[in-house]
Amino acid sequence: MVDLHDDERLDYLMSEEQMKIIQSPSISAFSLDAVLLASFTYVPIKRGNILDLCTGNGVIPLLLSRRSKATISGVEIQERIYDMARRNVEINELTEQLTMIHGDLKEMPKQLGNGKFDLVTCNPPYFKTLEPRQQNNSDYLTIARHEIKCTLEDVVKACSILTRPGGKVSMVHRPGRLVEIITLFKKYKIEPKRLQLVYPKKGKEANTLLIEGIRDGSPDLKFLQPLYVYDDDGNYTEDLEEVLYGKTK
Amino acid sequence: MVDLHDDERLDYLMSEEQMKIIQSPSISAFSLDAVLLASFTYVPIKRGNILDLCTGNGVIPLLLSRRSKATISGVEIQERIYDMARRNVEINELTEQLTMIHGDLKEMPKQLGNGKFDLVTCNPPYFKTLEPRQQNNSDYLTIARHEIKCTLEDVVKACSILTRPGGKVSMVHRPGRLVEIITLFKKYKIEPKRLQLVYPKKGKEANTLLIEGIRDGSPDLKFLQPLYVYDDDGNYTEDLEEVLYGKTK
Repeated sequence: MVDLHDDERLDYLMSEEQMKIIQSPSISAFSLDAVLLASFTYVPIKRGNILDLCTGNGVIPLLLSRRSKATISGVEIQERIYDMARRNVEINELTEQLTMIHGDLKEMPKQLGNGKFDLVTCNPPYFKTLEPRQQNNSDYLTIARHEIKCTLEDVVKACSILTRPGGKVSMVHRPGRLVEIITLFKKYKIEPKRLQLVYPKKGKEANTLLIEGIRDGSPDLKFLQPLYVYDDDGNYTEDLEEVLYGKTK
Repeated sequence: MVDLHDDERLDYLMSEEQMKIIQSPSISAFSLDAVLLASFTYVPIKRGNILDLCTGNGVIPLLLSRRSKATISGVEIQERIYDMARRNVEINELTEQLTMIHGDLKEMPKQLGNGKFDLVTCNPPYFKTLEPRQQNNSDYLTIARHEIKCTLEDVVKACSILTRPGGKVSMVHRPGRLVEIITLFKKYKIEPKRLQLVYPKKGKEANTLLIEGIRDGSPDLKFLQPLYVYDDDGNYTEDLEEVLYGKTK
């Protein structure tokens, strides 16, 4: 039995796999960006430890569980949203592999230990904190989208401390923040290695950036093929359909 | 009359415009990258001052003269190649607008003055200095391709000092050096603003990076549409033909 609260609903996450996810338009609903990150990132396949910061309703751990036998933990600072993530693990019967943690990512090195993870993923808040009146009305969504509880530097610093030397850090963000991301990655010893731009369609500027770095890695950045979301007719491109429904890489 | 030395030859630079260029396979011949940079970069249209560092046989100043009435200077450290650039200005009857300078880019701030240019372009050596035996055999080409006479930091530093506040710096390089370029741009107060990746064809990694920054600009990086050189049949794409032969932007 699924326990749904308020305006929560139960959606299918991946149609052909019968994976389900609880979400709520007013509190937490995953975005395409999380799905893109889960598809883009390297994962250790057979063993290891993965951590997802700013996990929201846990969509990235759920998606990564299809690609990896590693243990996967998710961290969410908002208790109401953490509770959705926890129930999402239960309804998908993944309690053996997935653990959700209610807490602040800045406290995780102390709580989980330094260099314990082979991979740390994060879909962090994208926007710098604005004047209160410009912010989104819902506290839940405001905190998920704006750098209120953590700055980009807090996120990168936590990723760096939690990842083992040679381990990977994967992040999704806005292209306009790339300069900051690269500067912070370098500051915290994460060498950028793979970068992919996502374009809404041909002729538009990129609106999403996927980046993966290696803790203490050597310099050598590769740009993957750009990814287009929609074709000229307004349908998803084949590449995007592969991300959404397709083969796990 | 054109004065050609050794294995120099006179090529048409832009077929429909009757622009000619002296080049030599053993000493200096322009690459697609220079043409891409000349097409990518912002230019002041009606007035102003443009400087091209590492100008080689002067291809970038020649191409920019089609798009701008600004005065354009080129700097080349190798005298033999500088002499080709100088003759290229003459045979195209552009001595009123274009000036070639024989010298070291590191000396240019002293020689030309700080902050005197609205735009500085550069197609610098791409490769870190290798063991002598691994280097290219020709001294001319070795110096053009390897960081022997100048490092990437020398180039960015010179660009920064020579550009006026609010002026632009445009560069072409390998994607693998992006992290360094961004780090150096930030160090020398050039804010990265526009970035374009060039892919040899679909399915391949990007092999060329075009980047433009603004001296003392505010942070906000935009990714332009990716550019493909060849289509699936091995022909130039329409986008590349526009760069090579097409409308000036």
